[in-house]
Amino acid sequence: MRDVFQGMSRFDQLQKSLGIAPNMLTRRLKTLVESGLLQRRLYHEHPPRYEYVATDLGRDFRPVLWTLISWGNKHFSPEGPSVIVVDAATGETADPVVVDRKSGRPIRAPEFKVTAGPAANARTRSKYAIASTRFAATRKPL
Amino acid sequence: MRDVFQGMSRFDQLQKSLGIAPNMLTRRLKTLVESGLLQRRLYHEHPPRYEYVATDLGRDFRPVLWTLISWGNKHFSPEGPSVIVVDAATGETADPVVVDRKSGRPIRAPEFKVTAGPAANARTRSKYAIASTRFAATRKPL
Repeated sequence: MRDVFQGMSRFDQLQKSLGIAPNMLTRRLKTLVESGLLQRRLYHEHPPRYEYVATDLGRDFRPVLWTLISWGNKHFSPEGPSVIVVDAATGETADPVVVDRKSGRPIRAPEFKVTAGPAANARTRSKYAIASTRFAATRKPL
Repeated sequence: MRDVFQGMSRFDQLQKSLGIAPNMLTRRLKTLVESGLLQRRLYHEHPPRYEYVATDLGRDFRPVLWTLISWGNKHFSPEGPSVIVVDAATGETADPVVVDRKSGRPIRAPEFKVTAGPAANARTRSKYAIASTRFAATRKPL
């Protein structure tokens, strides 16, 4: 599946589904193409018609959307979720949670933390060094 | 751990760590407080000094940041990651991946999809109904 919109990729489909003005959709798609998240392709020559398919960058952004949906459902949906992630085959609701790929352990604080990586510059290194010191100094017993 | 900055919560600590102008930090913290992600607390009366601690909303946003870091490291760090998620006790690098909490199955397309939830309004329902139809019609064999 190469399209980011779950099967929809053509301008007219997207416009119908989203129910927004064509000029607004054009502008948003242009931004997404310029950001490298979508690729525009001609699928019909006369008249020219375009479809928009996700790039690798766009497809790999999906986990961010899934965690955003969970966050939104937890905090901004007192009446229940209006958008959910489901098993496409069974329709069963999924509960997206972030784990470490290798160990399967749930990633959460304070067991896990963000820190400078191997390619960090001096500024980033110093930033997280300060954070670590403060973390150790102010951390409360569990 | 109630603070979102891994131990840092005070204005002067944040300013030193981030190395940005105080008025810019003030503006950003104000935005985060107004968004409900941070809470401002007086920790010293004379002179007045404030610390900024994450609300439930702010803490629950962390999984979004972890998936964003993974996405950025994969696509925008040809020289290697400058920020990583690690096991706070061992320092071992974690590889954040989104799974279904109950089954442990990795959430990915096309096995999982986004759809209208129980509290979806007619517009949202119709939007995903169109997507499903197109999805079925255009889906390629795996």
